[in-house]
Amino acid sequence: MKLLELGEFGLIARLAAVIASEEAAAPPAGVHPAIPASRLVLGIGDDAAVWQTGDVLTIATTDTMVADVHFLAPFDHAQDRLRQAQGERVADGLWHDLGWKALAVNLSDIAAMGGIPQYALITLGLPPETEVEPLIELYEGMSEAARVYGVRLAGGDIVRSQVLFITVALTGVASGQGYPDGVLLRSAATPGDVVAVTGWLGGSAAGLQTLLADLRLPPDVLGTLREAHLRPRPRLDEGRLLVKEGIRCAMDISDGLLADLSKLCAASRVAARIEEARVPVLPEVRRYFPETWSALALSGGEDYELLFTASAEQVARVRAQTGVPVTVIGIIETGEAGRVTLVDAAGEPVLWQGGGWDHLAEAGT
Amino acid sequence: MKLLELGEFGLIARLAAVIASEEAAAPPAGVHPAIPASRLVLGIGDDAAVWQTGDVLTIATTDTMVADVHFLAPFDHAQDRLRQAQGERVADGLWHDLGWKALAVNLSDIAAMGGIPQYALITLGLPPETEVEPLIELYEGMSEAARVYGVRLAGGDIVRSQVLFITVALTGVASGQGYPDGVLLRSAATPGDVVAVTGWLGGSAAGLQTLLADLRLPPDVLGTLREAHLRPRPRLDEGRLLVKEGIRCAMDISDGLLADLSKLCAASRVAARIEEARVPVLPEVRRYFPETWSALALSGGEDYELLFTASAEQVARVRAQTGVPVTVIGIIETGEAGRVTLVDAAGEPVLWQGGGWDHLAEAGT
Repeated sequence: MKLLELGEFGLIARLAAVIASEEAAAPPAGVHPAIPASRLVLGIGDDAAVWQTGDVLTIATTDTMVADVHFLAPFDHAQDRLRQAQGERVADGLWHDLGWKALAVNLSDIAAMGGIPQYALITLGLPPETEVEPLIELYEGMSEAARVYGVRLAGGDIVRSQVLFITVALTGVASGQGYPDGVLLRSAATPGDVVAVTGWLGGSAAGLQTLLADLRLPPDVLGTLREAHLRPRPRLDEGRLLVKEGIRCAMDISDGLLADLSKLCAASRVAARIEEARVPVLPEVRRYFPETWSALALSGGEDYELLFTASAEQVARVRAQTGVPVTVIGIIETGEAGRVTLVDAAGEPVLWQGGGWDHLAEAGT
Repeated sequence: MKLLELGEFGLIARLAAVIASEEAAAPPAGVHPAIPASRLVLGIGDDAAVWQTGDVLTIATTDTMVADVHFLAPFDHAQDRLRQAQGERVADGLWHDLGWKALAVNLSDIAAMGGIPQYALITLGLPPETEVEPLIELYEGMSEAARVYGVRLAGGDIVRSQVLFITVALTGVASGQGYPDGVLLRSAATPGDVVAVTGWLGGSAAGLQTLLADLRLPPDVLGTLREAHLRPRPRLDEGRLLVKEGIRCAMDISDGLLADLSKLCAASRVAARIEEARVPVLPEVRRYFPETWSALALSGGEDYELLFTASAEQVARVRAQTGVPVTVIGIIETGEAGRVTLVDAAGEPVLWQGGGWDHLAEAGT
């Protein structure tokens, strides 16, 4: 079978089964006497892995960006400069932004666990004909994000590759005490919880469209949308705030609201009902994408906002402590695990054709 | 400037300067109150990074293998089966071995620090047309290495990429107490130390030659050489033994003995003198590669043996406690930092033209 047919999530399930089978046949060698009591408490299937060593609850994640899959690589820097001189906004700071984003998407995973990021290892896969200057800019962007969010770039690897890619492995610690209370999990949603999101949705997907096509939009709108796509702001403060308020269930929105909510519901063995009109669509997206704003907000992906479930009182307490919008969009209910129903203001189901982003398919399916 | 001109180590120096400059301008945000005292004690420049969190000294590394750069990828599994059916030994278990090796080269970095490996994050970059079965075999090989060396595969990422690659990020803990005494560093060599290596050298590079060309060798020799190349055995027990014996300076041999020793000497601000006749060349290499055995052993690379410096007494104590050969090959001396002199039995310098492996150059330089 080809990967294209099996898909990302099918493959992950197969590979997880290999690991489980090998470990069942003969568990890994016992803990070494030199190690303080250490155990893996959360493996494959959430935004990050979690292990405990002594009193420390480590959170670890890794995310990769591949040229022409996750970003458009302007290999020819001279060409960039030329386009910039000709007034094109596209290439301006693109490499810097790419460095920012490569770290930010990993930071978002730590935010989704309610964690505090600490150390990153950076791998660059580089074609030998790559220009050095863009790589310096990329590292400047990554270093900027590291400084802003308190991360140290601790090491990494540089390898030759015909395709440019950037892999970040990021570790941090839980902001709360103990497992599972001290972290946010996809699997902790309970019927009766409300479903809430931080920030606005659809901006990143709309921003990508403005980078791919020559859309006639006011400069400030273009700026807002491209910023949403190129420089996502991981919700680290908000993730910690959720933990502080006793909230247990969250993930970040990377593949699209509905697709990600479905994953959260599947992990929690529950269903969800979302009111379409309550989804916080970025105003610029609603105004300038009159035919597609709903699709952009519901399944555009790469918003890197937090999606969480909690009591209405917890949501109100969170809202009172942050400047970021926090919007209740629906409710968790019993039902087929992973089922998400979209309803209109009258409670009638809205037929939804779109899906989420499968990283191995040719495009969102 | 193109990367090809700057080279891997030039690029690393430039990127490290970017990080240092950004951190000097404004250090990362202060440690969060929820984190036990945490600090980065060893960043870019050794086999792995080291940070301390509370009492725990974490060691972390990442290494990537890219198709057609670090390994030959038989994408077409049916083709593999056919070649296997026709009696070709090359493809037999190749994917399994590749999984083993992807983890093993990272384990070797932890061994070189004298550490104990614990948790791995696995990233697969995959062309959509990849067959699923080989990936299952790859994961079986990786899971086997994880079990043998006591590692848990804790999570990872799967992305679409036109080029197949495997990135492993591996964390562990120091086997010794405190920093720097509890770990092995490249920078701790002292004039008067002897230089020693574990195991035999040259087998991996010779094994690669047998995979690339149809060399007529006895089957058991072919098996030994290919095993050396495809299934390296990280020297984890030996790394811990070095720490236990109070040894402070080591690295693993991945780019070739002389190139790696030069890096160790540069990091320690010392020079070294190596006696060519004392280098432990794998007997099969010496016998079946009469013209190139010395080059294979001195700069072939990918041996994943430990190179270390210590007192002669320490080396003797190590030798008494392991079944792996431990050979003294030379001495650390004062002199130009990084200079390695190769001498014959009479102490006369041997002219050495070869270099080590630069991961961005077209081939070893």
